[in-house]
Amino acid sequence: MADTITTRIGEVILAGAGPGDPDLLTVAVLRELGRAEVILHDTLVSAEILALAHPQAVVIETGKTGFGPSRPQHEISAAIIAHARAGRRVLRLKSGDPGVFGRLGEELDALDAAGIGYRVLPGITAASAAAASLGQSLTERGRNRELRLITGHDAQGLAEQDWSALARPGAVAAIYMGKRAARFVQGRLLMHGAPAETPATVIENASRPDQTIRPATLATLPQVTQEAEGPAVILLGLAPRDARQSLKEIAL
Amino acid sequence: MADTITTRIGEVILAGAGPGDPDLLTVAVLRELGRAEVILHDTLVSAEILALAHPQAVVIETGKTGFGPSRPQHEISAAIIAHARAGRRVLRLKSGDPGVFGRLGEELDALDAAGIGYRVLPGITAASAAAASLGQSLTERGRNRELRLITGHDAQGLAEQDWSALARPGAVAAIYMGKRAARFVQGRLLMHGAPAETPATVIENASRPDQTIRPATLATLPQVTQEAEGPAVILLGLAPRDARQSLKEIAL
Repeated sequence: MADTITTRIGEVILAGAGPGDPDLLTVAVLRELGRAEVILHDTLVSAEILALAHPQAVVIETGKTGFGPSRPQHEISAAIIAHARAGRRVLRLKSGDPGVFGRLGEELDALDAAGIGYRVLPGITAASAAAASLGQSLTERGRNRELRLITGHDAQGLAEQDWSALARPGAVAAIYMGKRAARFVQGRLLMHGAPAETPATVIENASRPDQTIRPATLATLPQVTQEAEGPAVILLGLAPRDARQSLKEIAL
Repeated sequence: MADTITTRIGEVILAGAGPGDPDLLTVAVLRELGRAEVILHDTLVSAEILALAHPQAVVIETGKTGFGPSRPQHEISAAIIAHARAGRRVLRLKSGDPGVFGRLGEELDALDAAGIGYRVLPGITAASAAAASLGQSLTERGRNRELRLITGHDAQGLAEQDWSALARPGAVAAIYMGKRAARFVQGRLLMHGAPAETPATVIENASRPDQTIRPATLATLPQVTQEAEGPAVILLGLAPRDARQSLKEIAL
């Protein structure tokens, strides 16, 4: 394989594949895909992206989806380390950005403990792609000077957040892995005073050909979220731009 | 120029160029760079990226840097609209992700008002690239289930935030345009009980050849931030991974 950049034997590249559209891969990750000898990827990494791997690459699905049963993290780390120790060029490919709810730290800890070098390549996170598809900015002067990326659930179950701040007018948050947490999030936000008509949008399969944008309000969020079958990100506080324009017209 | 994808005459592409390294461009933005007839770009978009423009493209710097005097937003919007109305393929290129402190909304409002179609292409935001260069995850189980992207200052001046939440142990935030705000941020966080030894890292010119990583604590943040001359993002709550390892060893 082509090898124009010097890489230590045993160096692992941990990279973000973005939300699914191969066009949202970075140039760096596209290049690594074409020359990795072993690729260990999360289930959410799309088939269109894996098709860009070198034809002779060994491609291994690690099974992490954020939901349901998955391979234990220590087994995934052990597999990465074994391939790296065998001198193979290893690409660990995660969906989105590896630093955003990607459990990157656990794999880096394992690589550190094993004395194996690594490089992290960022990726487009779902919130960025989802907002772009709505024609919306995640931040806006006079509306929000802060963007929150939060997770709907974590290892302990449904994740508590700073609800009173999230309930404030103009607050914008992207909720990752929020499908099972939608009713919980709704309840917490209403309890903290958020209006039932607060806009929210559920973006399923962001950036993929089967992307579905579902406008909702806090009142309808649990039902609307349940309609999503694929991976979904919830943009709390944002409506699709067209709908917003329509609402403005109605209000006139 | 090559034109394999159907685009409406007058459609404007608003795209994120990422933090500066051409390798962090997405495939989609790289393609648009190669075929745009007019490119209007923020000052922070790197020369290496602009070198990838079509040789016959008209390349216009709009002058927005986040600091100091810049062309008024309405003039930038007017220029975009004029080129689009003339039937040219227009690429509006912003640094980072256009939806994250990129003033995207104001330009979309202007395009809507002018009846011009557009498409938004996301980019790698500075926080993702900066964290990757530290070997750190922006989120981590057991540490933070929330990541905040905040701005150091906005149109009104220094930006107030939810300081008590940011002062909590384990909180992680990326502060954009934080150079002038570092002393203010330090004061607010100390007042809200954050320990003076809270880690923070100032990443100047993230992803570029002249990237400089400056580890700090809340106590030293204003001095350390002042050393940065180029654009800088502050990662509050994160230390470079190597330093963290060293600290662990010292603590043993």
